[in-house]
Amino acid sequence: MANRLDDFELYRKKMNERILEIDHLGIKRFYNLDSSAYLDGALSSKTKELLGLVASMVLRCNDCIDYHILQCVSAGWKDEELYEAFNVSLVVGGSIVIPHLRHAVETLDLCRERS
Amino acid sequence: MANRLDDFELYRKKMNERILEIDHLGIKRFYNLDSSAYLDGALSSKTKELLGLVASMVLRCNDCIDYHILQCVSAGWKDEELYEAFNVSLVVGGSIVIPHLRHAVETLDLCRERS
Amino acid sequence: MANRLDDFELYRKKMNERILEIDHLGIKRFYNLDSSAYLDGALSSKTKELLGLVASMVLRCNDCIDYHILQCVSAGWKDEELYEAFNVSLVVGGSIVIPHLRHAVETLDLCRERS
Amino acid sequence: MANRLDDFELYRKKMNERILEIDHLGIKRFYNLDSSAYLDGALSSKTKELLGLVASMVLRCNDCIDYHILQCVSAGWKDEELYEAFNVSLVVGGSIVIPHLRHAVETLDLCRERS
Amino acid sequence: MANRLDDFELYRKKMNERILEIDHLGIKRFYNLDSSAYLDGALSSKTKELLGLVASMVLRCNDCIDYHILQCVSAGWKDEELYEAFNVSLVVGGSIVIPHLRHAVETLDLCRERS
Amino acid sequence: MANRLDDFELYRKKMNERILEIDHLGIKRFYNLDSSAYLDGALSSKTKELLGLVASMVLRCNDCIDYHILQCVSAGWKDEELYEAFNVSLVVGGSIVIPHLRHAVETLDLCRERS
Repeated sequence: MANRLDDFELYRKKMNERILEIDHLGIKRFYNLDSSAYLDGALSSKTKELLGLVASMVLRCNDCIDYHILQCVSAGWKDEELYEAFNVSLVVGGSIVIPHLRHAVETLDLCRERS
Repeated sequence: MANRLDDFELYRKKMNERILEIDHLGIKRFYNLDSSAYLDGALSSKTKELLGLVASMVLRCNDCIDYHILQCVSAGWKDEELYEAFNVSLVVGGSIVIPHLRHAVETLDLCRERS
Repeated sequence: MANRLDDFELYRKKMNERILEIDHLGIKRFYNLDSSAYLDGALSSKTKELLGLVASMVLRCNDCIDYHILQCVSAGWKDEELYEAFNVSLVVGGSIVIPHLRHAVETLDLCRERS
Repeated sequence: MANRLDDFELYRKKMNERILEIDHLGIKRFYNLDSSAYLDGALSSKTKELLGLVASMVLRCNDCIDYHILQCVSAGWKDEELYEAFNVSLVVGGSIVIPHLRHAVETLDLCRERS
Repeated sequence: MANRLDDFELYRKKMNERILEIDHLGIKRFYNLDSSAYLDGALSSKTKELLGLVASMVLRCNDCIDYHILQCVSAGWKDEELYEAFNVSLVVGGSIVIPHLRHAVETLDLCRERS
Repeated sequence: MANRLDDFELYRKKMNERILEIDHLGIKRFYNLDSSAYLDGALSSKTKELLGLVASMVLRCNDCIDYHILQCVSAGWKDEELYEAFNVSLVVGGSIVIPHLRHAVETLDLCRERS
């Protein structure tokens, strides 16, 4: 059964393909740079995904939160660890982050239901 | 010899003391909550300090960056690891982060000169 | 008849319960701190709710705007007074606030239709 | 056939009329000032609309993006030129802008389908 | 004896005069709109200044904080009331507001030393 | 005689060299991408610099404003045209932009004094 997480992934995939089709060199290079930033290096890919999640939460971007939660779950972060990252985001970003915390917790629950 | 990092620490200490002197219950509880958020738990204190640093960089707050770099260095993060966190912040937050990247690199250099 | 304000309140309630169920000490304490910030003190609860509304508008968070308009209406603020708060938010935050002004005016109208 | 761009325009029109009906002098003057800012002057209206688009993208406001893309298309900006403005917004604002880039590209495609 | 608050007021005055000298109609009208937003109306000028202060704190603008604290003190707000507004700002905006809270408390102290 | 614009340029140059010395591939590629975004293409370099300036103003970054004003002046934008871009930024971003408008006007004056 489809849910908002599936819808997000389909829309994200469709529009990213459309954007690459536009064939703008700068945009394509940005996409590559963005992917590369989360690869294993001096920090592990797993750690970097958690950094991406917290950055998305304090900047209050639901789509970015969804993407990074999916990545964090794939990378092996456990719920209790992600809740800690949610808490750091909440304290840094304040109550204005609460609607995004609700979204993040729901997304994480939807992720776990999938498996 | 005094530098801007020493000045920051002195000013931060002086004003935090002044703020606690005000004795506002909500503000004091917020300060406690803020400190607690970075203690060892499901995530290590070391990991949480790195999360705090990235949050500070994408939200573009130099004082917060200075504080979290000092904490990250104490927690044992190495330069190459911190550069990776800087890079994630730069990619997430864009070129508007660059002035704060310059600040962060300088702060890290000042930290290393201390030891 | 259900409308988007009812949906918001149901979703907010459901997810806040889910978040408390997670039982993360830091998050629970943040929720308490957030509630306490709007209680009567040196400033009245009524005044603080108006502060919360303006903060939500300039930070451009529709869910926060909905919550604080509901609170402001319960606290007894009249439409003309809330329009003044909308205007301060618009001038401070600029035209980027206009979509949130549209949302806020619609929410206030939905609130008044309820009674 | 209705699409999200038509819905946006209808809702925007309806709520702007409702806001003018409120008859708050400050809000009405802000609306006038906002319209005037994009008229021909030392810079052409066409150039100013592009400035408004980039401002909307880096501030991450989808409704503002939709409005300014409609205006930019009316003003005669071509797809390749708008893609360049998207790229500047992406580089300045970082990967947090990507969900809004997806939205912007879809909006531009919907605009072109109309004609 | 000069302090940073005097410097701010001098610089603010000098540059605002320079900006009016530029004689751009839109900018001059914005300045008028901004002043008018804080005049007595359905809300008192005193209440509106407090709204402006909270907006400035959550948007993290030190110059705006200084300006609105000066206005709030002139309007008759007492320290305990302003601390409550600081607390709402801190809870809404999170720990990223703390450096601006330090600045605000120092500014308020400088204001009180003047009298 | 040295002024704050000279200081900014010296500091910017020194720290950018230090950052390149770090030799982080992602950061170096970001710097290249950033430079490339403002080269002539479907939009002229001159137009793109103006976009960069407005983005910097609404995101309220003084260092970015200084950099883009220097670039805009080199690209041949006249004062009256830049004032129009300042006005669009002010209307989009609101009164919170005013301290950055003061900074921008001062920077532009310092630029003109150089020649």
